[in-house]
Amino acid sequence: MKSWLPIPPGSHFSLANIPFGIISTAAIPARRPAIAIGAHVLDISAFAKEGGFAKLKDFPSDKLGVFSETTLNSFAALGRPVHRVVREYIRDVFRDDTPYPEALRTNEALKKTALLPLSDVETHLPLAIGDYTDFFAGRNHAHNVGTLFRGAANALQPNYNHLPVAYHGRASSVVVSGTPLHRPVGQVLPAPGATTPVFKPSGRIDIELELGTFLCKGNQLGHPIPLSQAEEYIFGYVLMNDWSARDIQQWEYVPLGPFNAKNFGTSISAWVVLADALEPFRTQGLTNEVELQSYLREERKDNVLDINLEVTLSTAKGNSRTITRTSSKNLLWSWPQMIAHHTISGCNLRTGDLLGSGTVSGFEDGTQGSILEQTKGGKVPLEVGGGEVRNFLADGDTIIIKGWSGSGDDGLVGFGECSGQILAAVTQV
Amino acid sequence: MKSWLPIPPGSHFSLANIPFGIISTAAIPARRPAIAIGAHVLDISAFAKEGGFAKLKDFPSDKLGVFSETTLNSFAALGRPVHRVVREYIRDVFRDDTPYPEALRTNEALKKTALLPLSDVETHLPLAIGDYTDFFAGRNHAHNVGTLFRGAANALQPNYNHLPVAYHGRASSVVVSGTPLHRPVGQVLPAPGATTPVFKPSGRIDIELELGTFLCKGNQLGHPIPLSQAEEYIFGYVLMNDWSARDIQQWEYVPLGPFNAKNFGTSISAWVVLADALEPFRTQGLTNEVELQSYLREERKDNVLDINLEVTLSTAKGNSRTITRTSSKNLLWSWPQMIAHHTISGCNLRTGDLLGSGTVSGFEDGTQGSILEQTKGGKVPLEVGGGEVRNFLADGDTIIIKGWSGSGDDGLVGFGECSGQILAAVTQV
Repeated sequence: MKSWLPIPPGSHFSLANIPFGIISTAAIPARRPAIAIGAHVLDISAFAKEGGFAKLKDFPSDKLGVFSETTLNSFAALGRPVHRVVREYIRDVFRDDTPYPEALRTNEALKKTALLPLSDVETHLPLAIGDYTDFFAGRNHAHNVGTLFRGAANALQPNYNHLPVAYHGRASSVVVSGTPLHRPVGQVLPAPGATTPVFKPSGRIDIELELGTFLCKGNQLGHPIPLSQAEEYIFGYVLMNDWSARDIQQWEYVPLGPFNAKNFGTSISAWVVLADALEPFRTQGLTNEVELQSYLREERKDNVLDINLEVTLSTAKGNSRTITRTSSKNLLWSWPQMIAHHTISGCNLRTGDLLGSGTVSGFEDGTQGSILEQTKGGKVPLEVGGGEVRNFLADGDTIIIKGWSGSGDDGLVGFGECSGQILAAVTQV
Repeated sequence: MKSWLPIPPGSHFSLANIPFGIISTAAIPARRPAIAIGAHVLDISAFAKEGGFAKLKDFPSDKLGVFSETTLNSFAALGRPVHRVVREYIRDVFRDDTPYPEALRTNEALKKTALLPLSDVETHLPLAIGDYTDFFAGRNHAHNVGTLFRGAANALQPNYNHLPVAYHGRASSVVVSGTPLHRPVGQVLPAPGATTPVFKPSGRIDIELELGTFLCKGNQLGHPIPLSQAEEYIFGYVLMNDWSARDIQQWEYVPLGPFNAKNFGTSISAWVVLADALEPFRTQGLTNEVELQSYLREERKDNVLDINLEVTLSTAKGNSRTITRTSSKNLLWSWPQMIAHHTISGCNLRTGDLLGSGTVSGFEDGTQGSILEQTKGGKVPLEVGGGEVRNFLADGDTIIIKGWSGSGDDGLVGFGECSGQILAAVTQV
């Protein structure tokens, strides 16, 4: 499938993708929806106002206002069948053999106002997040970290293979790619075995390479979502970096879990890749050895997504190295299993809720999604190039996560990037 | 101070209180702000529209719209100095010697439309909650529960006295008093020492008696709130019941903390008692033996609130017993300390965020804020009357929490109640 709009080779935003986001521009500072295509975005607020969706069938005409809102929540809430027709329609608008040339291709005035260079727009959080839940479905990561702390024989906790372990995260501090974060300050133990903490900037800032999911539908409190229906609740996916302060975490996390070690910021990529766009890239996840409870038993074998993931660390001095290459298939639990478990208690999910997968890791060097794993608990320095090494992140370091599926022939389905820089601590200690 | 409106003896809603909430009525189903006074509420949306606030000084006149919104968030965001003048003005409107008789007392038409019997209104969540954080500041509770699980010598975890332990809770399932909750279903271990879970309705539904705080101000991500400024972020207080499924919690909580054991519902009382109304009831909290880090060191000694708290359990058969009598002063950490700790990492708080204190308990029988403590881990049944006993809650049981400060002479400053009934599980297992 070819487009009349030149799409640069290797672009994550091919015709096969059509991801949704929220943009603003210098000319129009109001936030509004857009889709990314090649090296451009289509401002779908402007497109909708100029009648661009006039020929879109199966779309409720009284709902066109969703394309003028400041978040994608109302669009998401229309449900997957609507996302499907909107995405396919926009793809058709950009096809070389488009049946709707007047919608954009031959409308020079609209192209000028609505088709903008990607480099000219600022991106914002795509949805207003209700609750953010972070799972721990990367079993290789759980195993690697458990081995560091408890040895290989006791690496996984007894519950790990029976249920998708998760905790409630902090929604307010989820930020869009490109937002720098200050190094957190807090209580840490000064040395192994110490029992009295000191107060200082964290010395062990780490990353967690994750996939995130935005929900497009909620359930009523008290009424669980069955596994078989859970796919219909998924709006789309983003890349996620669940920044973690390991020294703060180690001291604070017993018995109620991580708190300040995580709530200083979680970064997500700006463009939501719709669930449909990633359907062709399903594969089998990690095999679970235990017999699952009925509400978690899944018929389909191709239950996870195969997305290529890369993490690059760049220092303030300009040295740079790709420290992780792995795939999002390294998960023990599928999103439907996570959704079914999250709601089996009766907990209600809402449109705009964000779920994180947990850290995606392989076992081999260079495939693990956290620095903690790569440096064996901070003990084996990671070479970044130019003589620079890292046990954990230094001030000025930038982390860029990239993720994509597919090949150049059919067009990539990718996320662009999820980036963030660690700035010096603000707090005076 | 007396009111021209008869206030029943023992009412929680005296002239000294003036708590804010959100109501709807059969006649007007739209949600709108109100205050509670004696056995009535004043619909402040109707009051504002009829010019009731015309003589209110120090209030930004372009902000009167906050009294017509469906939540109190915009009113809260005006800040404590504004809450203060509004509360004092409304109190003056109801005083026997009111300087503003035309605002309500002599306006028979407005009294008819805006002054409604409390029993005729439905109450709703007072604020839209951004994030909900639950602390663990009730040291007696932590000690009681720790003793059950680890013995008295190791009751408190090493970090407990050094920092206000907390976890991120679930905001979507916070419900207003009176909302029934279905018993959650989930994975539990069938017997002590078992390693394979079974799937069933929780058999250990418990309560947690807590105080909640709504915030009226936020901070920028990366910029902590100093302890000395934290009081200005507090809008007011509610009673809270952090329902807990102990058997689900026991199996799921390692290593990331409670999840499905708590997210099936958290109840709060409907009326927010403003921070100013509780200022006269400050007292000293529990003494901390350790030297605190600088960001947690507090000058003032009267750092917690002395609110009488009562928990009553009523069964479907009609038996009823007050199982807990205690005070909210049984906290190790003050709200400013909790706020300072929550943000020391750089985490951003927002107007409408809800903080829970953690379970408030004494040490003696009948003073503990959870059934787990009262039944020694479910082993010593609690007599409810009429021959009924409880190890944990049964279907049909109702829990009513009441809380108030002050005496009948000056008028009580109370919350009304925070109630909730446990219904049978919905899920087919």
